[in-house]
Amino acid sequence: MNKKPLILITNDDGVKSSGIRALINYIRPYGKVVVVAPDRPQSGTAHAVTIAHPLRLDLITKEKDYEEYCCNGTPADCVKLAFKIVMKRRPDFLFSGINHGTNASINIVYSGTMAAVLEGALAGVPSVGFSLSNYSLNADFKPSEKIVQTIVGKVIEHGLPSGICLNVNIPDISYKSIRGIKVCRQSEGTWQEDFDEREDPNGRKYYWMKGVFVNIGNGQDTDQWALDNNYVSVVPVQLDLTAPIVILKSIKSWF
Amino acid sequence: MNKKPLILITNDDGVKSSGIRALINYIRPYGKVVVVAPDRPQSGTAHAVTIAHPLRLDLITKEKDYEEYCCNGTPADCVKLAFKIVMKRRPDFLFSGINHGTNASINIVYSGTMAAVLEGALAGVPSVGFSLSNYSLNADFKPSEKIVQTIVGKVIEHGLPSGICLNVNIPDISYKSIRGIKVCRQSEGTWQEDFDEREDPNGRKYYWMKGVFVNIGNGQDTDQWALDNNYVSVVPVQLDLTAPIVILKSIKSWF
Repeated sequence: MNKKPLILITNDDGVKSSGIRALINYIRPYGKVVVVAPDRPQSGTAHAVTIAHPLRLDLITKEKDYEEYCCNGTPADCVKLAFKIVMKRRPDFLFSGINHGTNASINIVYSGTMAAVLEGALAGVPSVGFSLSNYSLNADFKPSEKIVQTIVGKVIEHGLPSGICLNVNIPDISYKSIRGIKVCRQSEGTWQEDFDEREDPNGRKYYWMKGVFVNIGNGQDTDQWALDNNYVSVVPVQLDLTAPIVILKSIKSWF
Repeated sequence: MNKKPLILITNDDGVKSSGIRALINYIRPYGKVVVVAPDRPQSGTAHAVTIAHPLRLDLITKEKDYEEYCCNGTPADCVKLAFKIVMKRRPDFLFSGINHGTNASINIVYSGTMAAVLEGALAGVPSVGFSLSNYSLNADFKPSEKIVQTIVGKVIEHGLPSGICLNVNIPDISYKSIRGIKVCRQSEGTWQEDFDEREDPNGRKYYWMKGVFVNIGNGQDTDQWALDNNYVSVVPVQLDLTAPIVILKSIKSWF
């Protein structure tokens, strides 16, 4: 590609988070970059879209080959606004993150970072989400730099099959401790929720959600195994949630 | 099953919507029913979970074999609270809806109704979401009664394979016009968004999201084809989003 690619960057931790600042720095050398990200943290918003109230879009920075906007909506809203209002066309690539915290295994269904990526894939844009296994606001993203650039380079070189996007998770260890990049399947897992039950000053109960993630999948070909064994995991993700044909056939026999 | 099954009902249009009132009426004969639903409309919340503020849970009705609660959270929050706080155990079945509007094709990714269903499946509970192809608050759910009861009866009889849930969509036509129930795959589709750009009284721009759904899949085995041809569609949905192995292999060759 002779012309610089047009790249959209977004996330779900908000435009000020250190994860997206790192991602912007790592990716700017690769093309003309437009950032449209939430104006505040939106973790756990999943694929929510805003239909009950209007959206705002504010320009933060505009310079050669770089524009940055924030939006009061969700990550999916940001992508839709970026395509339609900011860029006026579909970008060549979409990169989301770096998320503060893992999106491996079933965490993808709760993730705003990955919802933005699915939104890109739905629009036919090769899209990748990056997450670091560290929930801290002050997580160290530096060891992710070469990982991100390797994967971004490969996606710019090869593109992605239609309807497929990538869920990349990076272990929270030093760069030299990373054993490599592994293409994996999504591990089976679940959250065991609990709720902190408290009482407000008026004596009314309220609940804080908390929980622990429990990995169920045990194959060495899963993303959770890769992370637990100091590999970067890359899960190619599809938009089609249809169960395998054998299950369709079995349920067909009911009717 | 001699003992009455314990059934959780929820939705994303809120506890007062006529869709959930219809579903409750159709399902109460099948077991002990607990309703935990959002206290207000939550369409488009997808699989969002509430981690930034506390949740409230209010008892509305308690009678023999029937309890009803509302919650200030999302459909996924409702399911988690129901399992942990209200029911103290996993129910035998979860039914969600009836949604005011279709969740066929790619609409599943935006749907709070179907997020509740996925949440059930994640916890190992056989779970089904019902949606009617009519977005109106005053939609007529009566033609859905026998459809819902047929499918609920089959799920109670057979259960569902682990990690699989059902996305049921019902065309908005009279019962006698319905040609049957078809087990389908998810149609390929996308939303072509547009935004209404307006100015507030202070001269600042804001945007209302709007759009039209565009069906891309053209097979007669898809849910969208079924609905367009007066069939009820039943898509067995899996929690594993991993792309087919051939794609994993091709991306493996990059590294």
